[in-house]
Amino acid sequence: MKQIKVFSPASVSNVCCGFDVLGFSVDGIGDELTISKSKKKKITITKISGFTVPSENNKNTASVAGQALLDHLGINEGFDIEINKKIKPGSGIGSSAASAVGAVFGINKLLGDPLKKEQLIQFAMMGEFVSSQSAPADNVASALHGGLILVNNHQNYEVVNLPAPKNLYAVVHHPLIEIKTSDSRVVLPKNVDLETASNQLSSIGGFIHSLHSLDFLLMKSSLTDHLVEKYRAQYVPAFLEVNDTAMAKGALCCSISGSGPSIFCLIKDSSEAYRIRTEIDKIYSRLGIKFNSYVTSLDAKGVHVI
Amino acid sequence: MKQIKVFSPASVSNVCCGFDVLGFSVDGIGDELTISKSKKKKITITKISGFTVPSENNKNTASVAGQALLDHLGINEGFDIEINKKIKPGSGIGSSAASAVGAVFGINKLLGDPLKKEQLIQFAMMGEFVSSQSAPADNVASALHGGLILVNNHQNYEVVNLPAPKNLYAVVHHPLIEIKTSDSRVVLPKNVDLETASNQLSSIGGFIHSLHSLDFLLMKSSLTDHLVEKYRAQYVPAFLEVNDTAMAKGALCCSISGSGPSIFCLIKDSSEAYRIRTEIDKIYSRLGIKFNSYVTSLDAKGVHVI
Repeated sequence: MKQIKVFSPASVSNVCCGFDVLGFSVDGIGDELTISKSKKKKITITKISGFTVPSENNKNTASVAGQALLDHLGINEGFDIEINKKIKPGSGIGSSAASAVGAVFGINKLLGDPLKKEQLIQFAMMGEFVSSQSAPADNVASALHGGLILVNNHQNYEVVNLPAPKNLYAVVHHPLIEIKTSDSRVVLPKNVDLETASNQLSSIGGFIHSLHSLDFLLMKSSLTDHLVEKYRAQYVPAFLEVNDTAMAKGALCCSISGSGPSIFCLIKDSSEAYRIRTEIDKIYSRLGIKFNSYVTSLDAKGVHVI
Repeated sequence: MKQIKVFSPASVSNVCCGFDVLGFSVDGIGDELTISKSKKKKITITKISGFTVPSENNKNTASVAGQALLDHLGINEGFDIEINKKIKPGSGIGSSAASAVGAVFGINKLLGDPLKKEQLIQFAMMGEFVSSQSAPADNVASALHGGLILVNNHQNYEVVNLPAPKNLYAVVHHPLIEIKTSDSRVVLPKNVDLETASNQLSSIGGFIHSLHSLDFLLMKSSLTDHLVEKYRAQYVPAFLEVNDTAMAKGALCCSISGSGPSIFCLIKDSSEAYRIRTEIDKIYSRLGIKFNSYVTSLDAKGVHVI
């Protein structure tokens, strides 16, 4: 095999109650990477279509991630990467993570799978660090594994695939303005009150229990962000109105994906998800904000060959 | 029914990864309360045996909790309470919580159960506040519901009964020295780094997932306290030696119960639990520290009539 084409999905991170540790992949929205073996002994970004990202080897998340993998394996080979960049950078739905994951997954495949999928995360993270030095692994883990995941940022990026109820859906709205992750992270306080941290523990604990017990009432009461939403909401257009509308219409939660500006809602039943999506679409249209919106199950595929 | 005798168990709180929100009841160790209807229109602590606690109405956790329940119900009746105080105050294993829970549970029973068990927690907490104004509800929820629980301190003390694996045991060591909860809480920093808080989220999330998936490797890696153990360890005699020994002998975790000085370990399989208990017993004996030690399953009964 000399060439491979992979799809690497967008992802929602934080998921309201799991700052930097929860995420899920988004169905059908993602970057496409075509990776070919090359005679040059390096990784070259040969073409970028779709949204614009840097093509320099040391600035592109895909090439940095791929090179980190090659360095680890001690392999002195070259690869050309074409990126069809379909996720807008600065969207809050894991644009850089998708490209980084696509690169390490594709190169590992072309090399005959020397590493298991779960071993690839650390190299994808090297690409993610190009966009933000303090990047957590929730987007990368989501794009790599698919579905709803919990990741441990302090212990080798251990990933848990969480059980996603079949009738749990997400609606994602992406207003087409850019917030750089590194900028948005700056507005977060460095510290949090110990009591607030403890409250967040019961929220994520209740959420994970609710996924197993299918207790949607508990899920709704647990999907609470005490840590970051209040600081980031001001940078997200129409957040309060979208939130109020979604919750009034029966969403389980409505919060900011990653550092924004994308907003996501979790909703029981797909018909309800489409209904709430339309209500939120109307808000952005009325305000004259360009946007994309998506509906996804919570067991969307992770990165895969296409 | 004019008289009732109840057993209200000791409990381990925090459970390593769930500061102020996780707890479990301890099998067979607890306070015994004998509660009788009285012609006096108030609650009277008529006798205290075992360990010493205040008997004044407004200082005893049982009478304060019981009175809070009566006030809520608008019932102008009196009760006499005899307390056989078997849990040493300041032990870190929920001494005040046990008495408070016993009182509200017993009085509610004598009144013909006007409230459901889950409605009693807020009144037991009024008793708990006598010992510490900032008391969290993990001990009270454990004594009330039994087994392993998750409690939400900021939303009406919502309690989740977590599934405890049948072969999961705890060893509890209680060195017979006293740390007042209010003193020990003072040594905690008011704030925690946001990154540390996030790391704790993946720990409790992984722990709760492991209870459902019976993944003991994940359970062990998740049973980590980033928030308070390091501040409290210095007040707990022999903590480091006990911790080193327990972990070397195969415990899943070894940490401080509540604000100490009690130490608990979680251990897979009862034979291993007894073996590790003996090893820790030896440490205290060698150091000349008086102690009690217990082995308990994680599905011990909560408060009940005896």
